[in-house]
Amino acid sequence: MLEELKQKVYEANMELPRRGLVTYTWGNVSGIDREKGLFVIKPSGVSYGDLKPEDLVVLDLEGRQVEGKLNPSSDTKTHIVLYNAFPEIGGIVHTHSPYAVAWSQAGRDIPAYGTTHADYFYGPIPCARNLTQEEIEADYETNTGHVVVETFRLRGINPIHVPAVICRSHGPFTWGRDAAQAVYHSVVLEEVAKMAILTETVDPKASPAPQSIQDKHFLRKHGPNAYYGQSAK
Amino acid sequence: MLEELKQKVYEANMELPRRGLVTYTWGNVSGIDREKGLFVIKPSGVSYGDLKPEDLVVLDLEGRQVEGKLNPSSDTKTHIVLYNAFPEIGGIVHTHSPYAVAWSQAGRDIPAYGTTHADYFYGPIPCARNLTQEEIEADYETNTGHVVVETFRLRGINPIHVPAVICRSHGPFTWGRDAAQAVYHSVVLEEVAKMAILTETVDPKASPAPQSIQDKHFLRKHGPNAYYGQSAK
Amino acid sequence: MLEELKQKVYEANMELPRRGLVTYTWGNVSGIDREKGLFVIKPSGVSYGDLKPEDLVVLDLEGRQVEGKLNPSSDTKTHIVLYNAFPEIGGIVHTHSPYAVAWSQAGRDIPAYGTTHADYFYGPIPCARNLTQEEIEADYETNTGHVVVETFRLRGINPIHVPAVICRSHGPFTWGRDAAQAVYHSVVLEEVAKMAILTETVDPKASPAPQSIQDKHFLRKHGPNAYYGQSAK
Amino acid sequence: MLEELKQKVYEANMELPRRGLVTYTWGNVSGIDREKGLFVIKPSGVSYGDLKPEDLVVLDLEGRQVEGKLNPSSDTKTHIVLYNAFPEIGGIVHTHSPYAVAWSQAGRDIPAYGTTHADYFYGPIPCARNLTQEEIEADYETNTGHVVVETFRLRGINPIHVPAVICRSHGPFTWGRDAAQAVYHSVVLEEVAKMAILTETVDPKASPAPQSIQDKHFLRKHGPNAYYGQSAK
Repeated sequence: MLEELKQKVYEANMELPRRGLVTYTWGNVSGIDREKGLFVIKPSGVSYGDLKPEDLVVLDLEGRQVEGKLNPSSDTKTHIVLYNAFPEIGGIVHTHSPYAVAWSQAGRDIPAYGTTHADYFYGPIPCARNLTQEEIEADYETNTGHVVVETFRLRGINPIHVPAVICRSHGPFTWGRDAAQAVYHSVVLEEVAKMAILTETVDPKASPAPQSIQDKHFLRKHGPNAYYGQSAK
Repeated sequence: MLEELKQKVYEANMELPRRGLVTYTWGNVSGIDREKGLFVIKPSGVSYGDLKPEDLVVLDLEGRQVEGKLNPSSDTKTHIVLYNAFPEIGGIVHTHSPYAVAWSQAGRDIPAYGTTHADYFYGPIPCARNLTQEEIEADYETNTGHVVVETFRLRGINPIHVPAVICRSHGPFTWGRDAAQAVYHSVVLEEVAKMAILTETVDPKASPAPQSIQDKHFLRKHGPNAYYGQSAK
Repeated sequence: MLEELKQKVYEANMELPRRGLVTYTWGNVSGIDREKGLFVIKPSGVSYGDLKPEDLVVLDLEGRQVEGKLNPSSDTKTHIVLYNAFPEIGGIVHTHSPYAVAWSQAGRDIPAYGTTHADYFYGPIPCARNLTQEEIEADYETNTGHVVVETFRLRGINPIHVPAVICRSHGPFTWGRDAAQAVYHSVVLEEVAKMAILTETVDPKASPAPQSIQDKHFLRKHGPNAYYGQSAK
Repeated sequence: MLEELKQKVYEANMELPRRGLVTYTWGNVSGIDREKGLFVIKPSGVSYGDLKPEDLVVLDLEGRQVEGKLNPSSDTKTHIVLYNAFPEIGGIVHTHSPYAVAWSQAGRDIPAYGTTHADYFYGPIPCARNLTQEEIEADYETNTGHVVVETFRLRGINPIHVPAVICRSHGPFTWGRDAAQAVYHSVVLEEVAKMAILTETVDPKASPAPQSIQDKHFLRKHGPNAYYGQSAK
C-alpha cells in the first residue's frame, strides 16, 4: 500500500540525521497522497538508525490508522491540521534543529535579512504564539496545528510563499510540494536561522533586506518569470 | 565478574566520544548492580581510543576496589555519593561538554526555555554552588557529591525528574536508570545548554516556557499517562 | 574545448562542498582563459553531487554562450563585469558561507583584526552597498558587479590586495589568479569572518591590528620582498 | 639524522589538521633534542596533505640549518627564542585556531573560569602585547619570541605552569615536554578559549573560578601530590 510514497517518506526521514538536523528521535517527516486522502508518517520514538520503510504508518485525514503496527508520531495530529488547511502542500517536517529552536524559544519571527532567506521565504518566518492552558489540555497536538493556521490567516501569509513556521517555546515545522522539498526547507530554515543570529551578533540593530531585493530573489526562483535553474531554459 | 554490566558501561563510555561530548579523557561513565551493591567505572586518565572492557574497575559503595588493576576515575567518590543518595539511579556520567560547562562556569541554572528541555528535564537544571576551601581540602570529590545532593534537597528537586546538575566552575553530571540512559541525558543536556545560549543571544530577556507547556511535554513522555513512543500502545 | 580549464574549474567547484562552504547549490566558481577571452562557469541550480565536468558552460565576455547545453549560473553577468573590470584575475567564486553572509547582512566591512586576515587581505574587506530599486529592475546581476567595481574604485582599493567583497544583504564574492586560488580566498574569508565575530564577542570595542603588523604580514607573503613559503629560497 | 625525533615531530604536525586546529598551512610544530642542541620543524608553506617526514628541517639554536632542502617555517626564529628562554620545554606549536585567535585579536588574557582550564593552565593564559613598529621592522619573528618571554618574566608566570600564550593581533603558541604534549596543549587551549567565550555569553560579568578550586585541580594533576591518572598508583 502506497509503497512508492512510503519509500520517499522513508528517504526524506533519513535525510534529517544526514543533514545534522535531528538528535536521537527528535523529528518526523510525512508525505501525502492527495488523491487517496492518505498520508505516511514516521512512527513515534523510533530511532533513525533502526527505522525501516515498513515501519512507517499510514493514516487518513481524520486520523484513522489504516496501516502499520507502530504508533504514529506524537505530532501526527498537527500534520493532519496542516494537510487539511493547506491543500497545496504534499509533505511536512518537524525538527528541533537548534538555531530555529532558539528563535522559537525567544518568541521572535526570523527577519528576512538577506537573499539566502528571500530565495525560499518571501518575508519573515512567523513565530506562532504559545498555546493557552485550555488549548494544551483540550488537544495539544491538534491545537498546535490550529495556532499555526491562525498565524498564517491573521497575518495574511501565503503558506506556499513562506513554507515554514516556528512554534513558540517549541520548534519549527516546514512543508513543501512533497516530503523531500519539506526536508529541503528544513535545511534552509536552519541555515537562515543561524545566519540571522550571526547577523545580529555583528549588528544588534540590523535591518531586514530592502523589499526590492527580497522581491527580486524570491521571484527569480518562483512564479511565472523565474529564471534560476534549468527548467526555464 | 559483572561481565554484562562491564560491557554495557564500556559501550556507554565509548558513546561519549562518538557523540562529541569528550576531548581526550575528559569524561567518565559508571553503572551499578544494585543487588550486589557493586558498580563499574572507567579507569582514570585512560584515553577512549585505548579503553577496553577489561580495563574497567569494580568498586563497592564504600569505595573499596574489588576488581581491576587500574586506578578508577578520579571522580569515583562523587559517583559513590550520588549512588547512595539517589537509590533509583543506575548509571552516572560526568563530562566537560562545552555548552554545559559554560553555564556552570557562569554559575547559572539552565532555564527551561522550551519543549526540548521539558521533554527530559522538569524545570531548570540546577547549578550547584562552589565548594568552600574547607570542603575542597577535606575531600574534594566526596564533597562535590554532597553539594549536588544538598542542591536537590534544599530546592526540593526530584533527581528522577531532573536527571542532571551542573557543578559551579566545573561541569555537568547526569544520571539515569542505567549507564546508557545517563549518557543519553548528557547528550540532551548539551543540546539544551546550546539552545539556551542561542535563545539568549536572540533575546537576552527571554522567559522560560509557560508551566503548562512544560507540564504537557514532560508528562506526555513520563509517568502513568505518557503516550510518546511505542510502549504506550 | 578548453578541456584543461574545464577540469580545473570543475575541481574548484567541487572543493566548495568539501570545505563546507556551500549548502545544496548555493555557490558557483568560474575560471577564464584570457588569451581566448572565454570563461567556464558552473551551470545554474545543479547540485554538487550531480555535477560533471562536461556540464560546465563556456561563455565569452559579452555573455554569449559558446558551449554547453545547460543554463549558466544565474550570477554569470556578475562574473563578466568583474572579469572585465579586474583584468589581473583568473577565477571568481560566489558562496553563501554563513559567517561572511552575516557581515554582509549586517552591512559592515570586516575589520582587519589580526594576522590571519592580513596574510591575505590588505585592509578591511569592503561591504558593497545595496542596489537601488532601479538597478535591481534594470539588470540585477550586471549591476551587482558594477556596485562591486564602484566600491573598489571609490575607496581606492586594489582588487589584488583585497581579493574579496561582501555584497550588502547578499553574500561574498572572492577572486584570485585562477579558480583554485579564488576558492582558497573563499575559505580564508569565511575563517576570517568567523574570527572577527568571535573577536567582537570577546570585546565589542575591539580595534583593528596596528598598521605595522598588517604591513608586515601582507608583505612577507606578497610582493618582491616576500619570504614566506618555498618560492623565495 | 634525528630520525626518531623527525618521525615524532611529523606525527605531531599531522595531529593538528586531525584535531581541526589548522586550515591549509596555518600552523607548525617543532621538537628539540636538548643533548645535541638541534630541533626539527615543519617547512614553510607546505600543506599538511603533502607533508612527509623527510621534508622536516633540522636547525641548531642559533638558526643554522643543518639538514633539509626546504625553507623552515617562517616562525622558526620565534621557536628558537622560546627554546633558549625556557630550557625545560621540548616541543612548541603555533596555530591560528579560531577561538584562541579571537582572544588574541581582542587583546585579552583568557580567564581561568573553571576546572577544564585549571587542569592544564595554572592561572589566566596571558595575552602578549603588540610589537612596536621598530620591533617589527628590526626582526619580527625573533622579537615575537622576546615579547612572549618578557610577558612571562614581567608577570612572574612559570612557563611550565602555563604552557601557552596568545600573541596580540596574531594567535597562540603552546609548548610542552615534547612535540606531542605541545599539540595536546593546543587542543586544550582552543577548547578552553571556546568555553570562556560561551561563559561570557551566558554572563558577561562572569568571575574566574575561586583560587582554591584552581589550586585543587592543577595540583591533583601536577606536582608531587598528583593523583590523577595511572602513574600515581
